[in-house]
Amino acid sequence: MYFAFEVLEKDIAGRLGRLKVGEKTVRTPALLPVINPNLTLITPREMKSLGVEALITNAYIFFNSAKFRKQVEQEGIHHFLDFDGVIMTDSGAFQQSIYGKVEISNQETLKFQQQISSDIIVPLDIPTSPGADRETAERELSLTMSRLREARDIAPERSVGPVQGGIFPELRKKAAEDIQRLGFSFCPIGAVVPLMEQYRFRDLVQVVRAAKNGLSPSTVVHLFGAGHPVMFALAVAMGCDLFDSAAYALFARDRRYLTSHGSYRLDEMTDFPCSCEVCRKHSVQEVKTSLDAERLLSSHNLFITLAEIACVRQAIQRGTLWELVDDRCRSHPRLLDGYRALLSHSKDMESMDRVSKDHFFYRGDESCARTEVIRYQGRLSTLALEEEAVISLVGGVSTPYQVFLFKPPFGPFPPELSETFPIGQSVIPSWDEKMVKRGCAGIRALIHSHPQTHFTIISRKDWYDLVVREVPQVEVMCDLG
Amino acid sequence: MYFAFEVLEKDIAGRLGRLKVGEKTVRTPALLPVINPNLTLITPREMKSLGVEALITNAYIFFNSAKFRKQVEQEGIHHFLDFDGVIMTDSGAFQQSIYGKVEISNQETLKFQQQISSDIIVPLDIPTSPGADRETAERELSLTMSRLREARDIAPERSVGPVQGGIFPELRKKAAEDIQRLGFSFCPIGAVVPLMEQYRFRDLVQVVRAAKNGLSPSTVVHLFGAGHPVMFALAVAMGCDLFDSAAYALFARDRRYLTSHGSYRLDEMTDFPCSCEVCRKHSVQEVKTSLDAERLLSSHNLFITLAEIACVRQAIQRGTLWELVDDRCRSHPRLLDGYRALLSHSKDMESMDRVSKDHFFYRGDESCARTEVIRYQGRLSTLALEEEAVISLVGGVSTPYQVFLFKPPFGPFPPELSETFPIGQSVIPSWDEKMVKRGCAGIRALIHSHPQTHFTIISRKDWYDLVVREVPQVEVMCDLG
Repeated sequence: MYFAFEVLEKDIAGRLGRLKVGEKTVRTPALLPVINPNLTLITPREMKSLGVEALITNAYIFFNSAKFRKQVEQEGIHHFLDFDGVIMTDSGAFQQSIYGKVEISNQETLKFQQQISSDIIVPLDIPTSPGADRETAERELSLTMSRLREARDIAPERSVGPVQGGIFPELRKKAAEDIQRLGFSFCPIGAVVPLMEQYRFRDLVQVVRAAKNGLSPSTVVHLFGAGHPVMFALAVAMGCDLFDSAAYALFARDRRYLTSHGSYRLDEMTDFPCSCEVCRKHSVQEVKTSLDAERLLSSHNLFITLAEIACVRQAIQRGTLWELVDDRCRSHPRLLDGYRALLSHSKDMESMDRVSKDHFFYRGDESCARTEVIRYQGRLSTLALEEEAVISLVGGVSTPYQVFLFKPPFGPFPPELSETFPIGQSVIPSWDEKMVKRGCAGIRALIHSHPQTHFTIISRKDWYDLVVREVPQVEVMCDLG
Repeated sequence: MYFAFEVLEKDIAGRLGRLKVGEKTVRTPALLPVINPNLTLITPREMKSLGVEALITNAYIFFNSAKFRKQVEQEGIHHFLDFDGVIMTDSGAFQQSIYGKVEISNQETLKFQQQISSDIIVPLDIPTSPGADRETAERELSLTMSRLREARDIAPERSVGPVQGGIFPELRKKAAEDIQRLGFSFCPIGAVVPLMEQYRFRDLVQVVRAAKNGLSPSTVVHLFGAGHPVMFALAVAMGCDLFDSAAYALFARDRRYLTSHGSYRLDEMTDFPCSCEVCRKHSVQEVKTSLDAERLLSSHNLFITLAEIACVRQAIQRGTLWELVDDRCRSHPRLLDGYRALLSHSKDMESMDRVSKDHFFYRGDESCARTEVIRYQGRLSTLALEEEAVISLVGGVSTPYQVFLFKPPFGPFPPELSETFPIGQSVIPSWDEKMVKRGCAGIRALIHSHPQTHFTIISRKDWYDLVVREVPQVEVMCDLG
């Protein structure tokens, strides 16, 4: 197999993996910096020294370039760019979505990308605008699919299969299933840039999760055009493995400064909130007035972008991706909407999530809807119960009956599970209402799945009313201590 | 005045300022790296090139050093450390809290610190352990106060006045008031290291806010021993201006890696989630096996620490300190407890907060308790109302009566305020229950302060039940559109 994807570790629907592209290897999640041959402030060679294993450039620019075409056709794209890692080439589909048409056919771009020895070839798919109605989305998807079939003929090994379908989840899922059947094992999710530009992160989550539901878990997934570091964690949590970023350069040209929590306009800044070389060695004033400002900003933007990919990898390794997603998504209220949308998919994603994690940190109400809580409460039905059981919210109690302790937001647990994940590794602040409510849902799940057992609850005084309200079918005793 | 503190901008109870120490100037908030003369992996000269304007070292180490004492007495501390910025010297009080006693008197340390030309002199105060009962705390505080009076005699200009009082807020406040009366204008808050080590951030907030309530707003406040970047934003929001950090070096010695969201053990890491020079140019494996690991880690730790100070400064400049505090404090559930404790002081801090900010981003339920919400709802009483008023949760309505629109968590607003802060600059996700509840509190405030006006509410269908419950005294109409 030309593309081979090995999953080394997982977290939520995200994966830490090793992607083989022919003889070359890329660690995932990975960020492919976009190289524009007309404007290379940071060379591919410099990128390699920063750990970049793959990059992306646009075949269409070369195809149309009087200056570069001949040279790149003769010497190949790796020699031309002076980069021996993985090079992916885009087809011009993005230009088509911006300008309405391109002067290249699907066949032409596929053959041209082959000729210049691209490692990863993208067909000329049709990026459906989020404004398109369903009929248009279907018609365009059908054209994309015929081009993908063409790609399987012309470049069967190296060609990837982009998933389109506009903003219609069922179309995205069907497209993904069809593409999978054509034999593609590398699938970009396309036409999401406008959603990200318009901060429609809730729609983004619906579209990506739908596409993922149609793809095999062994398929490597590239989120096309996702270049702002603030959304890498969210995208990886949904199951995306690769990104491409022109943002580091485009933002720099616009005198904008990237961070993992959003962007600033350079001219409105007073201090650089970053530890990179550029930021520690230059004052804001120096960069503002430097003739080299664009290159300095590009460098900073690339450093922070690569650091964020490392941050996501580190989080998956430890099993703390939910914590990272929570952190990044609170950076903007629209991202918070996206995060809350992702949490509403927890039930789906629970089966993909790993069994044990370094820790579970409660970070606010949203943590109640995490996969670990759903899994924990789902497994309460498997516990063996006696005829009488006491659920104690006040710690150990003296009783002849079987005792369950209580840890919100999970719910009741037998003392012998107190050291196992998630009970033992979860850290929570002082109880809050939402957390205790969610824990009561765990009590209800235990009661519901054990109709032969008679339950009594012992509650702390301050939570008594809530518990009585949330678990109305059971006697609740109040601990006055 | 030897110490002169100018506040340039403020946010919550935090300040961006300029501290004059004699002829020298320090921008605040500032981090004073701790220099240990026995172990300088990063020299003061290198620190200066990274923008460090002030540092701290321990006079007690020099006083007891056969190796250094003579030299530093002769040439002065600035020459000895090769640093011409501000140098603060600690007295040995910290050693006393660790080892129970020190071989130096208050008079001796004050005179020694003068002799070596320290810019900022710390008396030998008594750091009361958080475990001490009230009687002990009072007795120790009284000894501290007598030493501070001695300091006013011996080193009236350069000596600072540490605030003690154990974990008793009323003692801290009284201590602060007394110290203020002695004429100190530079006050460290002492003996908080054990609280931070034990993750008792809620207690930390109570103690610091109590001390701040006893101090003049023009006093510069140093939080002694606060060196982990994760808590700078919280500490600044409470009103602290200066920190000192040995953490960058101590953590490195222990092979620990600092981030603005917590720490990692180097040996458990796989990727460096950071953009600094060390992290972009070395793999984790290289650092793990390097003979130079301690220096590399120290450098990274210092870079990230200084970046966090820059991040706090940038946030105050824009008026986004609440967003930063929210971000950092969700890193650990105990910090979340501290954050929630700080929010419970919003009513106190509201009067200190600035009038207008770059934006208000809703980041979760906690945002409902921010100073801006309290201020907004407090000012609803000043609006001029007619006899009949309609509060519309559904946008513009056609009615002959005075109309208020509604934006949670703030509440009702007249259309002419739609562009002003906070209504115009606040960004919220899709409405959630807590946010709408808080907005209803705004409706109640408006109604309560305008008993002559008759109100009608028009609610969206999905929020009708909640609004009826929260504002029971008013007719609520349901918009079915």
